Amino acid sequence: MRIEIINTGTELLLGSTRNTHGSWIGQELVKLGLRVQRQTTVPDGVAIEDALAEATKRSDAVIVTGGLGPTSDDVTREAAAKVLGVELMEDEAALRALRKFFEVRKKPMVDANLKQAQNLVGADVLANHNGTAPGIYAPPRLGGEPSCAVFLLPGPPRELYPLFHEEVVPRLRALGGVEVIDQVQELKFVGIGESEFQDQLDADLAKVAGLEVGYCARLGELDLRLIGQERAIAIGRNLAEEKFAEFLVCDDGASLEAVVVRTLAKAGKTLATAESCTGGMIASRVTDVSGASEVFTHGFITYADDAKVNLIGVSHETLANYGAVSEEVAGEMAQGALRVSGADIAVSVTGIAGPTGGTEEKPVGTVCLGLATREGVETFRELHPRSRKDFKLQVSQRALDLVRRVL
Amino acid sequence: MRIEIINTGTELLLGSTRNTHGSWIGQELVKLGLRVQRQTTVPDGVAIEDALAEATKRSDAVIVTGGLGPTSDDVTREAAAKVLGVELMEDEAALRALRKFFEVRKKPMVDANLKQAQNLVGADVLANHNGTAPGIYAPPRLGGEPSCAVFLLPGPPRELYPLFHEEVVPRLRALGGVEVIDQVQELKFVGIGESEFQDQLDADLAKVAGLEVGYCARLGELDLRLIGQERAIAIGRNLAEEKFAEFLVCDDGASLEAVVVRTLAKAGKTLATAESCTGGMIASRVTDVSGASEVFTHGFITYADDAKVNLIGVSHETLANYGAVSEEVAGEMAQGALRVSGADIAVSVTGIAGPTGGTEEKPVGTVCLGLATREGVETFRELHPRSRKDFKLQVSQRALDLVRRVL
Repeated sequence: MRIEIINTGTELLLGSTRNTHGSWIGQELVKLGLRVQRQTTVPDGVAIEDALAEATKRSDAVIVTGGLGPTSDDVTREAAAKVLGVELMEDEAALRALRKFFEVRKKPMVDANLKQAQNLVGADVLANHNGTAPGIYAPPRLGGEPSCAVFLLPGPPRELYPLFHEEVVPRLRALGGVEVIDQVQELKFVGIGESEFQDQLDADLAKVAGLEVGYCARLGELDLRLIGQERAIAIGRNLAEEKFAEFLVCDDGASLEAVVVRTLAKAGKTLATAESCTGGMIASRVTDVSGASEVFTHGFITYADDAKVNLIGVSHETLANYGAVSEEVAGEMAQGALRVSGADIAVSVTGIAGPTGGTEEKPVGTVCLGLATREGVETFRELHPRSRKDFKLQVSQRALDLVRRVL
Repeated sequence: MRIEIINTGTELLLGSTRNTHGSWIGQELVKLGLRVQRQTTVPDGVAIEDALAEATKRSDAVIVTGGLGPTSDDVTREAAAKVLGVELMEDEAALRALRKFFEVRKKPMVDANLKQAQNLVGADVLANHNGTAPGIYAPPRLGGEPSCAVFLLPGPPRELYPLFHEEVVPRLRALGGVEVIDQVQELKFVGIGESEFQDQLDADLAKVAGLEVGYCARLGELDLRLIGQERAIAIGRNLAEEKFAEFLVCDDGASLEAVVVRTLAKAGKTLATAESCTGGMIASRVTDVSGASEVFTHGFITYADDAKVNLIGVSHETLANYGAVSEEVAGEMAQGALRVSGADIAVSVTGIAGPTGGTEEKPVGTVCLGLATREGVETFRELHPRSRKDFKLQVSQRALDLVRRVL
């Protein structure tokens, strides 16, 4: 099946917003055993019409993102109606859903939103539970010859992603016929890099018959993707576990923080955090997980020295003797957080996020971590010279992984 | 001048590599007053030929990235020769540069590299000091009718970026002639939605001669993009400010947290945070900003009731009488954080992120916020029924905006 993506949005061509839809949809389609043949970005406005007309001639399915909003530059619906040669009409169910969306939020619905209830005659409305713009699916017969299916989807990722899974995937499967589809397993590893996999595992995986192997490296973690029939995947997984079992976080796509929360819950333990350089990111990641309140009660963001002393009892002497970024201070932070909160485990971080504040002895990227339990405290010193945001993410990753490992 | 970009690379369509060239080139062109009209991604191989043939018919200049390497899937040179109807021949200077590249690195040059010294007859070779693939520039006369300039550029960013600045920019300037170039201004608004703009402003903006208007809505914020000559932009901006001045956060693309940090620094004030439902996200956003340590010292993550009582002195009575999610508790949290930290401003949030924990009186999405200063405390109660992560983001947005407004 030949599939194209059209992303609309002047901001994408100006470069002020990066186009992430293209690669996201590409990845999702790979999981279905499908591939994107072409991706096109056009500005808001009439250009969408040309692009859509061309794409429907070449392809079996075209997925358009963006341009379904209430403002004057949102013209995807109109463009699709022209290209497919059908009328737009108000869809009653879509209008009801729209009114309800505003009702629940106790906000007035303005006339501009009305056009978001317009649908192409003969097309399906795809319910959007996270925004005002429903998607639209025009099945192949609407496209005339050559026959092509058209999906119109909202641009914001928080609306696009769930709608894609709920409404687009089943329709693509149906369109694609009854192909035998390989399974996909993704194993998430933390604390080990792509080069180690390349070096110690890749050649062995390549020898497994019927197994397609892919890697997706993110900051501080690596997904190993195994595609194939059940048996080939099992062999590949065994090979990976033999080498790197201690780094394997999960096989169900869960985030590291979700794994930490569910492991804490299972063990009946609670966690406290004491953060300096990450400024709350560790706690924020933990509380992204539903059910975090069962295992997380107290977080301390001790950005200033004063805060370290007053909130979690780091001693003036330790600060004066070793400096705020030291294993000694990290240790006292973790122990203090454990004591004040009454939690079972406390993790602490103190470091130099940069871009300023580094010294020869402690350059930008230096971080000290502490892990306290009832049994005692362990400390670590590491160097992660990265941009400020990446440094925070990498350090929060390390801190969460320390908690996972102690469990 | 009508410009298109074609990015080649199967990995871009599989989604395993994100396409960053499109937005990077888009931004560089905006700096020159030029705009990309269309961006297309095609897989390695023959598809590049179709895409290039179409683009040269529509445009004045086409920039192609990738497919200039030594391997069999690198066919951009051959595709361009076919589309432009010219031969390929070995370029002596390019071959010398290639030999030198390997000599300096003390690596052997293999036969596969020889094709990288091939140039289109009549085209310029663009020296690549950071890799083996020189760029190629085919000026308009080569393209026949309709006349179009074609740039072939290497894919790796460390090769593309310098080559673009050194070789492409001067040629585009020359091609572009002396056009009067439009400016772009982006105004960021927080606390007001796209529909309000559509309803109260869009029609007025549409009447401004020579002004192009665009919107980009993100969760809890909206960018208004004005494109045109200085005068038209000024008129558009005035219209927007007349209606929505209090919601205008910045005109330089800064994030809300960056605006909060620099406004605090300018006022010489410090901030503390007391977070329940956002679990540290507000503080983490503040500390994403370089220089945050000047204005932010203490953050309290009081996820459990105990933490609210012990760390920032919320009273047992208030918790018992009104519940943890109440304006009363939010007020005491903000005042407590102000007192314990000694900061000038403290902001607090307590709410029900969901998906569980809602009641009829306080459904999922309910949040209470507090803002304390030396002058007193204000509290707010709002409803943001969203997914857990979106709820946290939206609430952190509201909290930061409260701080911005009090300044």
